[in-house]
Amino acid sequence: MSFMKDISLLVKNNFLSGIDVLSRRAAQITVEIQQGERTNYNKVLDLSSGDLHRGGIKPITFVRQVLAACFYPALLEDDSLPLDVKQRAKILLSECDGGSIGSYTDSSGIAKIKLCVSQYITRRDGGVPSSPDNIFIKSGSQTALMIMLKLLIRSKDSCQTGVLIPVPTYASFTLALEEQGAAIIPYHLCEEQGWTLHVEELRKALLTGRKTCNPVALYICNPGNPTGHIQSRKSIEEVIRFAAEERLFILADEVYQSCVYGDDTEFYSYKKVLSEMGSTISSTVELASFNSVSKGFMGECGLRGGYVELVNLDPAVREYAQRLFSTRSCPPVIGQIALDLMADPPKPGDPSFPTFSEEAQSIKNMICKNTGRIQEVFSELPGISCQPLKAGFFVFPCLHFPPKAIKWAKKRQMEPDMLYCLHLLEETGLHVRPGCEYGQRKDSHHIRLFVATQQDIMEDALQRLKTFHMRFMKEFS
Amino acid sequence: MSFMKDISLLVKNNFLSGIDVLSRRAAQITVEIQQGERTNYNKVLDLSSGDLHRGGIKPITFVRQVLAACFYPALLEDDSLPLDVKQRAKILLSECDGGSIGSYTDSSGIAKIKLCVSQYITRRDGGVPSSPDNIFIKSGSQTALMIMLKLLIRSKDSCQTGVLIPVPTYASFTLALEEQGAAIIPYHLCEEQGWTLHVEELRKALLTGRKTCNPVALYICNPGNPTGHIQSRKSIEEVIRFAAEERLFILADEVYQSCVYGDDTEFYSYKKVLSEMGSTISSTVELASFNSVSKGFMGECGLRGGYVELVNLDPAVREYAQRLFSTRSCPPVIGQIALDLMADPPKPGDPSFPTFSEEAQSIKNMICKNTGRIQEVFSELPGISCQPLKAGFFVFPCLHFPPKAIKWAKKRQMEPDMLYCLHLLEETGLHVRPGCEYGQRKDSHHIRLFVATQQDIMEDALQRLKTFHMRFMKEFS
Ligand SMILES: Cc1ncc(COP(=O)(O)O)c(C=O)c1O
Ligand SMILES: Cc1ncc(COP(=O)(O)O)c(C=O)c1O
Repeated sequence: MSFMKDISLLVKNNFLSGIDVLSRRAAQITVEIQQGERTNYNKVLDLSSGDLHRGGIKPITFVRQVLAACFYPALLEDDSLPLDVKQRAKILLSECDGGSIGSYTDSSGIAKIKLCVSQYITRRDGGVPSSPDNIFIKSGSQTALMIMLKLLIRSKDSCQTGVLIPVPTYASFTLALEEQGAAIIPYHLCEEQGWTLHVEELRKALLTGRKTCNPVALYICNPGNPTGHIQSRKSIEEVIRFAAEERLFILADEVYQSCVYGDDTEFYSYKKVLSEMGSTISSTVELASFNSVSKGFMGECGLRGGYVELVNLDPAVREYAQRLFSTRSCPPVIGQIALDLMADPPKPGDPSFPTFSEEAQSIKNMICKNTGRIQEVFSELPGISCQPLKAGFFVFPCLHFPPKAIKWAKKRQMEPDMLYCLHLLEETGLHVRPGCEYGQRKDSHHIRLFVATQQDIMEDALQRLKTFHMRFMKEFS
Repeated sequence: MSFMKDISLLVKNNFLSGIDVLSRRAAQITVEIQQGERTNYNKVLDLSSGDLHRGGIKPITFVRQVLAACFYPALLEDDSLPLDVKQRAKILLSECDGGSIGSYTDSSGIAKIKLCVSQYITRRDGGVPSSPDNIFIKSGSQTALMIMLKLLIRSKDSCQTGVLIPVPTYASFTLALEEQGAAIIPYHLCEEQGWTLHVEELRKALLTGRKTCNPVALYICNPGNPTGHIQSRKSIEEVIRFAAEERLFILADEVYQSCVYGDDTEFYSYKKVLSEMGSTISSTVELASFNSVSKGFMGECGLRGGYVELVNLDPAVREYAQRLFSTRSCPPVIGQIALDLMADPPKPGDPSFPTFSEEAQSIKNMICKNTGRIQEVFSELPGISCQPLKAGFFVFPCLHFPPKAIKWAKKRQMEPDMLYCLHLLEETGLHVRPGCEYGQRKDSHHIRLFVATQQDIMEDALQRLKTFHMRFMKEFS
């Protein structure tokens, strides 16, 4: 290996034109491996996205059995499927026009499934009421979020609409904001304190933002991607109070709400906390909360099912929202059904319950073991520090590069962590994402690693990372 | 029955606020039936949308078997599934990350499926080359069309971007155009000549449009919704020549390409015709062609799978398109797989072929029989004239209302055909859509009927329509 070999030239043109060079290179390498042109490793290990099944984790049997029976109702006569699976599939099919998941549905989702989701939310929040009329199901939470942005961003104002977003934040959201013409107002999370959100930081960002745009919304990602943090109840209260004072619409991306690790950690939804803050606040702060079947232990990203719940919307805005949601085509029925199964999984006593709970628990255990191993390995490596992972699917360790490595990257006009990731991929086949894609404090560098994989895959990944990192640090020290 | 009973008051407020009163009323009536409050009929018959399965037509077995096996790979060991089904599911799963349809894919679709689609297009067009790089799969053709509009419509120009659209055209498209800030430039199809498209009409519309906006694109729906017409090769050539002269981008909505009836009717794609018009034209006219698994005899609307093929795009525009498509989340994997099955169905000799071709043929026969019956019934009814149905899923008969009926509607500040549809629904439970939603020549009135239903459903619908229509004409004559 030589870092002097100029991989940067290889990718530079693509890079400048905004093409995802890392993913493209990963695809090329996969082809090279297939054609026998690679001998140093036999597989690209992809820890680049938050995708359970790609990480080798098996789908939940109950979910797949119900979905298969919905597709092919002949299976309803099959003795090998559990009774509750067949009952559930029958009920769900009866909610579909013509008894088929091949029919269009209402553009914001099947009424009974919206009801089921609202009941889930009520249970989750210890009784805080939720109405199906405020639930809008779309083809993934990302799509629902895009529609909310469309609602909030006025393209015709002389002054751009501003949205406060955390640094770091996941890249595709930032791109989407830009595409919709929003002004991005970054606020920094405090890495040293486990990526906590300080209201002072929000206030500072807002003041700066007001100089150039019209800030209307505050985007929160809790639990955090890429940071793996989770907000305390107190922190959420502070943020809500701030939003109330400054009349900001809260966009609460809570897709990782069921991925919480560690015994002392609990997820509080923005809606629940809001509901307990006294009527002046609880009945006025406008909130949209997002959730998805992509995350959690179901990990069904490819089905595309997500929803937004709207809280306290001004009636005129709510009507406009309704219209925006209804001019778009309906969400995939399968994604809607997956939401139903997520919101109302098997209960103790149901035939599917033992397998279901065993599978869910084993995924949780696997992730916990992985995060333990990651911390262990990182603590042994020079030049890496990592905040503890409390929730979500990612860790975002800080890389303290030697000055020589920084210079080396500068000479190639690339971000050091991007160059690190490119070489890591090239030399070991491990695909992780560079911190520069998410935003980070000036002169700090990170990588983002997906943690929810099978253990052997994680072991393999850590081994590749370790070997590469040691050589890298040695070469540049 | 009395038409003097003021149903208009019942729905007026909703109507003015843009809510879909017909659909809402249909839903209410369904509840009334369930609660035993209706005795005149026992079911709402829904011919309001282009949805095969809602119309009682069974899904294609091959499609559902492959999809079920993809969901629940234990079925790959099941002896009751045909060999080609299992082989196909295995191949498709091997194209998914982690071997699961629950993984995210590339945002424009799985590479092998895009290849399969491009091969289908090449076969369809008798060898005209198609490249997977120009195929973008999305969550339905509607979503792909929205992204193309986003690409073409500049919201920041002082002059609005104009799009030429046919009158009549399906309502959700018009709404979407408005939402995206486009100026709508209507061109009329000639009903008397079977809804043909005259270039003179396009030219007239363009001239008018140029006075108030900047026309950039021409939307074509061929075969037509709601008109049931199909363009001849010559007509397509004329349109392409016009687009070339006027430098218009062609948006060819060809989702009904496989729904063609009558022996003397053939579908020509815009791409094929374009390719044969000499290099000055064939290499310059920019074209986007749309297709979907929702239509055709698969009728899998709820899966959400559609694609656009881009032809002759300016490289800079193409790159922007690529970016727009890639900032959105991936299409549902199941919808993508359905596209693969549509593009490459069972062939003679495959175990699934006999059942598959029998099912497909029987759906075609059913539609042909239905359209025959519709013409028969309409020809007997006073005050209805209907152009022959050549293709697609709808007929759009013209209703010649007596002056008294027009006056009655005017008094209620409603469109006569809307009031007709509301009463038809109220009195008989038959749900069809009024022509005013699609656009029609001043003082002409229509209804749109979905034709691709089971025969007994169609018979029932025609009976309801007939009874109602006779009474209506009598009351107002
Ligand atoms: C914070 C966050 N929100 C939303 C999404 C997208 O979820 P969906 O698949 O429901 O669109 C992701 C995907 O990684 C995410 O990390
Ligand atoms: C002409 C036309 N294009 C597109 C669509 C929508 O198709 P999809 O389900 O692929 O979004 C329809 C639906 O009825 C249609 O009639």
